[in-house]
Amino acid sequence: MHEETFIQLLQKQLPANCILSQTDELRPYECDALSAYRQLPLVVVIPETLQQLQTTLRLCARHEVPVVARGSGTGLSGGAMPLGNGVLLSLARFNRILEIDTLNRIARVQPGVTNLAISSAAAPHGLYYAPDPSSQIACSIGGNVAENAGGVHCLKYGLTTHNIQALEILTIDGEALTIGGPALDSPGYDLLALLTGSEGLLGIIYEVTVKLLPKPAAAQVVLAAFDSVDAAGAAVTATIASGIIPAGLELLDKPAIHAVRKFIDTGYPEDANAILLCELDGSQEDVTAQIDHVSQVYRDAGATTLRVSHDEAERQRFWAGRKAAFPAMGRLSPDYYCMDGTIPRKHLATVLNRITELSAEYGLPICNVFHAGDGNLHPLILYDANQPGELERTEELGGRILELCVAVGGTITGEHGVGLEKINQMCVQFNEAELQQFHAVKQAFDPHNLLNPGKAIPTLHRCAEFGAMHVHHGQLPHPELERF
Amino acid sequence: MHEETFIQLLQKQLPANCILSQTDELRPYECDALSAYRQLPLVVVIPETLQQLQTTLRLCARHEVPVVARGSGTGLSGGAMPLGNGVLLSLARFNRILEIDTLNRIARVQPGVTNLAISSAAAPHGLYYAPDPSSQIACSIGGNVAENAGGVHCLKYGLTTHNIQALEILTIDGEALTIGGPALDSPGYDLLALLTGSEGLLGIIYEVTVKLLPKPAAAQVVLAAFDSVDAAGAAVTATIASGIIPAGLELLDKPAIHAVRKFIDTGYPEDANAILLCELDGSQEDVTAQIDHVSQVYRDAGATTLRVSHDEAERQRFWAGRKAAFPAMGRLSPDYYCMDGTIPRKHLATVLNRITELSAEYGLPICNVFHAGDGNLHPLILYDANQPGELERTEELGGRILELCVAVGGTITGEHGVGLEKINQMCVQFNEAELQQFHAVKQAFDPHNLLNPGKAIPTLHRCAEFGAMHVHHGQLPHPELERF
Repeated sequence: MHEETFIQLLQKQLPANCILSQTDELRPYECDALSAYRQLPLVVVIPETLQQLQTTLRLCARHEVPVVARGSGTGLSGGAMPLGNGVLLSLARFNRILEIDTLNRIARVQPGVTNLAISSAAAPHGLYYAPDPSSQIACSIGGNVAENAGGVHCLKYGLTTHNIQALEILTIDGEALTIGGPALDSPGYDLLALLTGSEGLLGIIYEVTVKLLPKPAAAQVVLAAFDSVDAAGAAVTATIASGIIPAGLELLDKPAIHAVRKFIDTGYPEDANAILLCELDGSQEDVTAQIDHVSQVYRDAGATTLRVSHDEAERQRFWAGRKAAFPAMGRLSPDYYCMDGTIPRKHLATVLNRITELSAEYGLPICNVFHAGDGNLHPLILYDANQPGELERTEELGGRILELCVAVGGTITGEHGVGLEKINQMCVQFNEAELQQFHAVKQAFDPHNLLNPGKAIPTLHRCAEFGAMHVHHGQLPHPELERF
Repeated sequence: MHEETFIQLLQKQLPANCILSQTDELRPYECDALSAYRQLPLVVVIPETLQQLQTTLRLCARHEVPVVARGSGTGLSGGAMPLGNGVLLSLARFNRILEIDTLNRIARVQPGVTNLAISSAAAPHGLYYAPDPSSQIACSIGGNVAENAGGVHCLKYGLTTHNIQALEILTIDGEALTIGGPALDSPGYDLLALLTGSEGLLGIIYEVTVKLLPKPAAAQVVLAAFDSVDAAGAAVTATIASGIIPAGLELLDKPAIHAVRKFIDTGYPEDANAILLCELDGSQEDVTAQIDHVSQVYRDAGATTLRVSHDEAERQRFWAGRKAAFPAMGRLSPDYYCMDGTIPRKHLATVLNRITELSAEYGLPICNVFHAGDGNLHPLILYDANQPGELERTEELGGRILELCVAVGGTITGEHGVGLEKINQMCVQFNEAELQQFHAVKQAFDPHNLLNPGKAIPTLHRCAEFGAMHVHHGQLPHPELERF
């Protein structure tokens, strides 16, 4: 069917204010936060009602027009990149908090509500929504579910998938399904976890029921400085092995500390080669006991400085450096590329050292600021997109870092999703049978491959072209490594 | 193909000690712990190696012979009930603990390892595996994964799905897939949660990686007695609403207390109409603070007696009554039927009162001992199978209790699975589109419907025959209830 005609069909069935089709109107939707890739959609649809959403999907299904859903567009892996022949479906007008149920400690919200708005609405009841991605002021809960977003506190409180209870979705045919429910367990297959992190490939979410947690009575941060990243990495492993699960456990390496110190005053020690920030929360008694415990762990691990936040202002100051790390590094370089891989904690030091070697090999500086407690690395490659070939070298270096993560038994994403960005690395992460299983699951929801096609799960053909050597769960040898 | 010939094919490819085909050898496999239903399988296969397992599945796939997997056979919903024309596949010989990794706090085990054996193996390292179904001495981890098993402590520590990290499975075609991995998030669709609780319908597990937790430094139990189940139910809601998540929060009603008191000496107060057992764990400081906190909550909620365990022996004695409840009630009646439904906590009192009315209506006594904290009811219907029609009336009463759970927004299973037992109630829980989606997912793994057919997910035809009135998430009126 002719594209013009499809837009006319939409116009016939939806109010004019739900449809954008002029180039200047489409421009804001040409990319998400992975801005290296851009593409104008055929048309943007911004439904206001469930019925309008259903109408849009049914039209797309009937005329086999692909659909890319978009929340706030803060995604880092290009999951909301439009297709030139498809609908960009914005859920921005599904932005109401429908219910805060304090007895059952849940909130029912529409997908366009921001992550932080949920916690703000729950705050008068002493409750909050735990996952806290860095973009929480802006990112939408629908996008959080689509990407299975994490945050600093997911070490203790889990990812999005651990903090939601139910979804209401529409299939590509416009059929409404309730996924999950109020109980801890749900009969039938667990489609709730399956939908979470499915990057818009299985269905369109129109309502999310999230769990709310009571705000901990106390929270304090231990800041520990170390002479080397090796020592800090060993301290991370020792923390967890000692039986403590901190609310957050973050690591900054020397280039990151250096960048942050030039940017704001955080009280980070001058000579540190690595800093750990370990947040402990719970009752005041418990926090005090845990601070003593981890302080001893860090002394034993060779900490050169140990500081404990004594009030909320100091706690915020310790975190300010972590939070400012990305903008601070943005001042060191015209562009940066934030990676997102996860490795078993015990390989932290080895992998960080190998990243330093790769950085030298490619002549591109790398800073590391990351969720050390759950082994979720965020190496930041600094580059200049105006230097010919530098983006390509950056992407190649990024790919090698992700393959390094897989080679030690880790994964190519911690919390940002696969999207467009890491689709080639999926060929490294999974073997043919596993990818075929993913495609079969996709088929079970979206047989004509209309929901966000080309993202998250590569075709076998693409993997063959990419020519990936499959290093499965560190079992096979890999050029990156001798053997772990 | 003739059945005789299929057994001969198995015999040609597998060692003799892996195959049972004589009636007396098959007898022990005719049911699991839902012993009201029995069926001899065509043949039992007990492979010792992965290759033998793969051979068995490939033969079944090629000749379209159905396969029912079985762990220890302790399941309560008939999930491991054999098929007369199928293979009963016992994983009993996959019984090795492959690795305890204390740094990453995980254990890799084969599916036939018992739940308790994992904790025992981890104990020297101060670690344990959290989910603790009542059958933990006997039940296998493979069965736990298949049923998404819970236990007393799942309120705080989650179900099986929250405590595993990876599965190695074979598809019905004998293809090996790695599902999940060491990281908190995994790229691609979350098949780990999908497989967990899928009741043997999607694949055969041959290895499980479980998370291990540090043993809490302290654990104490608060025992609170109340004048009525209503008051105890309100106290449960108040506990959670006050911001505490106990390690366990169990409720016993008057018939249950009465049965237990006649059976063993637990120190339960004589005149209680309902008892709550609230376990608190963590550091000693934290436990002490939490005991003060919940004691105040229970005083405010009208507790008539409050006791705190002061040493491990007393804690064990408080729990002994809870643990002895089922055998104790077994002495009151020739047979009992243990139900398993989940409701939103706020409806506890209403639902328990309605169960009392239903008990009178059917003339069948019901005791209630259950995981109150997560709203997971286990009403025990006492009956005598030798009285003509009494089993049928019991099953009908059970069905009405489950429909009552659905009508208040709950579910028909908390932790025992659907199996054969509750397959009709699935028609009440889900609508046609949702059931169709389940079948599509099944199709994506097992297109010829050979893995545990007839369990867990009813055909639409069956639902039509059952004539269920669909009461979806409490949204529609239902004969059981006016409206909540």
